[in-house]
Amino acid sequence: MKFAPRRRPVCFLLALGLLACSYAEAQDPLPSWNNGPNKRAITQFVADVTRLGSSTFVPQDQRIATFDNDGTLWVEQPMYTQLAFALARVKALAPQHPEWKQQQPFKAVLDGDMKSLAASGERGLVQLMMTTHAGMTTAEFETIVTDWTRTAQHPRFHRPYTECVYQPMLELLAYLRASGFKTYIVSGGGVEFMRPWVEQVYGIPPEQTVGSTIKTQFEMKNGSPVLMRLPDVDFVDDKAGKPVGINKFIGRRPIAAFGNSDGDQQMLEWTAAGPGKRLMLLVHHTDATREYAYDRQSSFGKLDKALDEAKAKSWVVVDMKRDWKTIFPASAQGK
Amino acid sequence: MKFAPRRRPVCFLLALGLLACSYAEAQDPLPSWNNGPNKRAITQFVADVTRLGSSTFVPQDQRIATFDNDGTLWVEQPMYTQLAFALARVKALAPQHPEWKQQQPFKAVLDGDMKSLAASGERGLVQLMMTTHAGMTTAEFETIVTDWTRTAQHPRFHRPYTECVYQPMLELLAYLRASGFKTYIVSGGGVEFMRPWVEQVYGIPPEQTVGSTIKTQFEMKNGSPVLMRLPDVDFVDDKAGKPVGINKFIGRRPIAAFGNSDGDQQMLEWTAAGPGKRLMLLVHHTDATREYAYDRQSSFGKLDKALDEAKAKSWVVVDMKRDWKTIFPASAQGK
Repeated sequence: MKFAPRRRPVCFLLALGLLACSYAEAQDPLPSWNNGPNKRAITQFVADVTRLGSSTFVPQDQRIATFDNDGTLWVEQPMYTQLAFALARVKALAPQHPEWKQQQPFKAVLDGDMKSLAASGERGLVQLMMTTHAGMTTAEFETIVTDWTRTAQHPRFHRPYTECVYQPMLELLAYLRASGFKTYIVSGGGVEFMRPWVEQVYGIPPEQTVGSTIKTQFEMKNGSPVLMRLPDVDFVDDKAGKPVGINKFIGRRPIAAFGNSDGDQQMLEWTAAGPGKRLMLLVHHTDATREYAYDRQSSFGKLDKALDEAKAKSWVVVDMKRDWKTIFPASAQGK
Repeated sequence: MKFAPRRRPVCFLLALGLLACSYAEAQDPLPSWNNGPNKRAITQFVADVTRLGSSTFVPQDQRIATFDNDGTLWVEQPMYTQLAFALARVKALAPQHPEWKQQQPFKAVLDGDMKSLAASGERGLVQLMMTTHAGMTTAEFETIVTDWTRTAQHPRFHRPYTECVYQPMLELLAYLRASGFKTYIVSGGGVEFMRPWVEQVYGIPPEQTVGSTIKTQFEMKNGSPVLMRLPDVDFVDDKAGKPVGINKFIGRRPIAAFGNSDGDQQMLEWTAAGPGKRLMLLVHHTDATREYAYDRQSSFGKLDKALDEAKAKSWVVVDMKRDWKTIFPASAQGK
């Protein structure tokens, strides 16, 4: 065999790309989406911006699509996955911190007392995040995240969090890439919490992952350079921070943006404000049976003002229950 | 004609890529480099990491190469180009600021008094940068930069700054890309000063341009969202900041890094510290006749500690005078 499967020289990839071109034209690119106006709005937009010679054509280098992560690409209930990770880290680190038994917000975590945890407010939450996300090198943190995502399971779906991703959105990502888009994550979550697994799960490389950051510092440790993670917030990539993050990290305005909450409102506004054809889409969680149903009152992924704006401006609002044939991919672990 | 030249559908690009593959194998990829140990070190490195089945092979997605800009890809004498831009902006804005005639560091700029400007120190310089780089939207700033780079000329070479780029480095960028590398700029310069022109000049898209940033803020202006540039430094992508910027913006460690000054030392150290084959290269400005000769004593692009480390660790040190057949590309404007 000339090409081993895990080795990917450029020419082989290019040839594959050519094949993919013909393939994409022949198949339904979104098989897990029910036919209807929302699916049609997506395929129509892609056709409009890729049709050579049309007035709505967009050159390939400008086909930037940004995706929120929590609640848009993967489950964010009963709590953000990164928060579940932080709680698990507190439990794992507790033997080295006997004082936590008496000290909030750690005591609440160890007691499983979510009420006291909520009462500790944003200050408690930041303390929790800094304690569990800082004080190690970037390489050490990557190992911690990788180990956790390999073993942790979602409490309701009993499968790894990385398999609690939305099959219809995986198809949408692949469809956009096959149509010459560069797909980005633009998440309020920590960028170094996502980068270790996004490529394998979403096909999005680390360098196309934008998120919140904490400060890091270049240091020499035993003669080798390391980046130490400091307990100090650098950038919050949420709400009005999302356009800021897009401009800072990508430097181009997206022509398509996908979200599910008020945290994505400004990203969609920023996307909509450019010239030419645009696609703004919100995932509305309407399926309590297969996933969750929540919007205006939710602690995680609150969708209120953005829903009103979406309706007023005719952005696409995906009705998860009606629009999606399946929610999750077939589990890699079997059933 | 089936494909118009300025429209680039994915399949056409892929086909071009396939052609480029065969082409790259047949030609000298670095015609402006004199044969010798430095050119050989580059081509040997590329051969080592791209040879399928070899123990030194690096998968394509990990072939990240980072390039400093000032003094590595374009001229940084007699001063950083971005500083020349700032001085020109002060002159352009002066009619709206009569008070500047009496006020340092602006008075020094208007009088062409570089001694007083230098005496204003870092504080004066920051004031100059903030006054000329903030207080407008990102879109307005992009227009200002684009207009200036189109018209401004280098005082010695009498050609646009964007043509005071190094032909051998343009070839190196193209060679690495043809070998499956993703090429990045990692510069101490402002990212929004570079992004408007880097794609056309270097073939590096805005999203692969890392640099220093000032804070921006999402605002509604006449009902449209804009990003306002604030007079507040966000991140300095220089010295120990370069590995931090690489980790933050790219999220992967480069396997090849190119610089020319002490500002690049930590980037090269960070690159060198990864496993497998690595290429660390410094451009040493040794050619006063065709360009400039400077190193340990220079105000701009000081090369001192990094030169010692390069020698001690056998990093490639390009001797501009000896290694480069030509310095600049043929001028687009003619001679």
